[in-house]
Amino acid sequence: MAFSDSLNNLDFDDSIQLEQEKSILTIWLNRPESRNAMSAKMVQAIQQVFSAIQDDDSVRAVILRGKGGHFCSGGDIKDMAQLRGEALVAGNNRPYADFNRTFGAMIEQVDVAPQTVVAVLEGAVLGGGFGLACVSDIAISLENAKFGLPETGLGVIPAQIAPFVVKRIGLTQARRLALLGMKFDGNTALQIGVVHEVAENEEQLELILNKTIEQIIHTAPHASRVTKALLHQSLTEPLDTLLDKAAEQFAEAVASSEGIEGTMAFIQKRKPDWVNYD
Amino acid sequence: MAFSDSLNNLDFDDSIQLEQEKSILTIWLNRPESRNAMSAKMVQAIQQVFSAIQDDDSVRAVILRGKGGHFCSGGDIKDMAQLRGEALVAGNNRPYADFNRTFGAMIEQVDVAPQTVVAVLEGAVLGGGFGLACVSDIAISLENAKFGLPETGLGVIPAQIAPFVVKRIGLTQARRLALLGMKFDGNTALQIGVVHEVAENEEQLELILNKTIEQIIHTAPHASRVTKALLHQSLTEPLDTLLDKAAEQFAEAVASSEGIEGTMAFIQKRKPDWVNYD
Amino acid sequence: MAFSDSLNNLDFDDSIQLEQEKSILTIWLNRPESRNAMSAKMVQAIQQVFSAIQDDDSVRAVILRGKGGHFCSGGDIKDMAQLRGEALVAGNNRPYADFNRTFGAMIEQVDVAPQTVVAVLEGAVLGGGFGLACVSDIAISLENAKFGLPETGLGVIPAQIAPFVVKRIGLTQARRLALLGMKFDGNTALQIGVVHEVAENEEQLELILNKTIEQIIHTAPHASRVTKALLHQSLTEPLDTLLDKAAEQFAEAVASSEGIEGTMAFIQKRKPDWVNYD
Repeated sequence: MAFSDSLNNLDFDDSIQLEQEKSILTIWLNRPESRNAMSAKMVQAIQQVFSAIQDDDSVRAVILRGKGGHFCSGGDIKDMAQLRGEALVAGNNRPYADFNRTFGAMIEQVDVAPQTVVAVLEGAVLGGGFGLACVSDIAISLENAKFGLPETGLGVIPAQIAPFVVKRIGLTQARRLALLGMKFDGNTALQIGVVHEVAENEEQLELILNKTIEQIIHTAPHASRVTKALLHQSLTEPLDTLLDKAAEQFAEAVASSEGIEGTMAFIQKRKPDWVNYD
Repeated sequence: MAFSDSLNNLDFDDSIQLEQEKSILTIWLNRPESRNAMSAKMVQAIQQVFSAIQDDDSVRAVILRGKGGHFCSGGDIKDMAQLRGEALVAGNNRPYADFNRTFGAMIEQVDVAPQTVVAVLEGAVLGGGFGLACVSDIAISLENAKFGLPETGLGVIPAQIAPFVVKRIGLTQARRLALLGMKFDGNTALQIGVVHEVAENEEQLELILNKTIEQIIHTAPHASRVTKALLHQSLTEPLDTLLDKAAEQFAEAVASSEGIEGTMAFIQKRKPDWVNYD
Repeated sequence: MAFSDSLNNLDFDDSIQLEQEKSILTIWLNRPESRNAMSAKMVQAIQQVFSAIQDDDSVRAVILRGKGGHFCSGGDIKDMAQLRGEALVAGNNRPYADFNRTFGAMIEQVDVAPQTVVAVLEGAVLGGGFGLACVSDIAISLENAKFGLPETGLGVIPAQIAPFVVKRIGLTQARRLALLGMKFDGNTALQIGVVHEVAENEEQLELILNKTIEQIIHTAPHASRVTKALLHQSLTEPLDTLLDKAAEQFAEAVASSEGIEGTMAFIQKRKPDWVNYD
């Protein structure tokens, strides 16, 4: 296992662990003692990794998953206790707001990451963990994973994740889940559109993940980056300017080495060279 | 049964009936002789109630349902006959437009009401009644309820409800339903995302409603209000400013009596005090 | 079979074929030798037809389907070869971009066409063909049709169709399909919201199509046009101005001959006169 150069000088604690297999990077959330509760340091570590690989074409996909049978149980209660102390000293609520905002910045960064992001969902997928799952490109879940937005039942609000939940499943489902503070399993998550595939057990989960990685490897790295950005932009840019820009990006893609290789491989009925790229 | 103070000085006819059980207010559409067709007076009465409880924290949820086995069959034909007379006198179509616009204002008010709104759907859920169902936070339907947008088949248009239908089920489903003037049952309504749960019979319908009320009562009243507003804003506000504001609302919630009580209750493994609030 | 006057002076090659049965126009994509690959001439022909019927109330619906058992397999490879020559001569990628942009203009035109547009999906529904299917008002598919966005696997991007795919099925499904370059059948297309109905075989497909046409004929022609435009506008216009405008359109519809006939027919329990209109 060799890491891409972009990942060599990172500095974070053991709240996450990295693994790289050719062009596929796995980020393991690694606080199993707290069901991978999202600590401030974990948020920083995730952001550091995604910033490092931003322009690194050698990393084509990122797998997000949790150690110890859980994805992520949400915000860390110990952090909240410390923030309470800071708020007392400061005499205002700024420390809570700053901490909360950082979490939203991390989710937004993962949402628009140029790599294809796959979330592997097991055990707790709650609160902030649910929000993180909502920005994956492909989400695969164990049937018995436990999803939910427990915030309103705890007297607080799903602040940073609300817009990402609405973007993921639409307002109709989001308002019920958030206002009832509901918990639900993987099959319901599939029905309402949080996840794309559900596995009955760990073995099947790995099979689906491997098949997904296989599919990712068959797509052209640069074309995938451009496509992902285009999909995001289609939610915010006016249609005409978007289609103008897309036409230029199409022309660049066709004339690029990827476009030429892709066409040749198709005609010659062989795999394009990027399939073996690592 | 005691009404909240905010509801004591209302003045409307018997086109609706109110019931209150602790913090849960039920608005019964009460024109069973016309399958609860939405008359001008009914529109005004509903608006009056939602305006009265706007800032009343003692009302946490509103149940919308119809007397006599129907939810609402749409606009009232008798009103239309009267409007025809007014239009003749006025020499223009203004009376139709004004009446129609009032209906949209009512739907919009229910959509953004700070309370959690539950629609209980039986019998006819047609036209304007369909639009009203589309702005509930939680919609529960009988399997044999009859949903539909009959307007184009009658030579008119689903004018005030169109944007709320698109917001509810997306353009893909909305264009088919509206352009075919289709009718469909509760199971189809569930599949295309109009409703969240379907009951086989009246008994099961009441069970689902009671369970929903139970879940609402377990969420913090103020946090729920803030969350509902946040979900709506996520459709229209730019992400960055929304997340900034959400972080401040999160800080307020954590430091509020609800946030403190919610955390304490969670640690002490007991129900928070708002569960018994009435 | 008689064509509407608006269709009499059109000039296009045999890349499409027209059929008209009363108020229903069928556009057959007619390049079965290439699974109806979308050539530049086919794009122009489709645009020409939709421009011609834009203001023609005698054409109430357009059926889009393909000859030879396929809907459309995407862009035409022969066109691409010719464009490569043009790009070499021009010394830039402009020819690719211009060609690509034309395709988006055609899709946009079909999306907002005033007629009710029905797509009948068989065999290949790939790339640009998939994009065209995504702008239909009603999509009916054979179970074994093959849908997909193969672009990223070929080193290029789903440029002009990306926004229409997101509008059709939402970002959550679109990012997975586009980033995995996936192929899938009619049942999956139904599950993720690309199509509205699936047929097990050709016979059933024709039955569903005939039933759909029957429903279209029962809706008022002008009211349907106004309704379709309103649904589209609800995605882009501010709610208040949209509802104001919709109220005026409602008033016009009620006072129109269609509105009066629709109400009379309803009261007299007979079919409105437009059902026999041709």
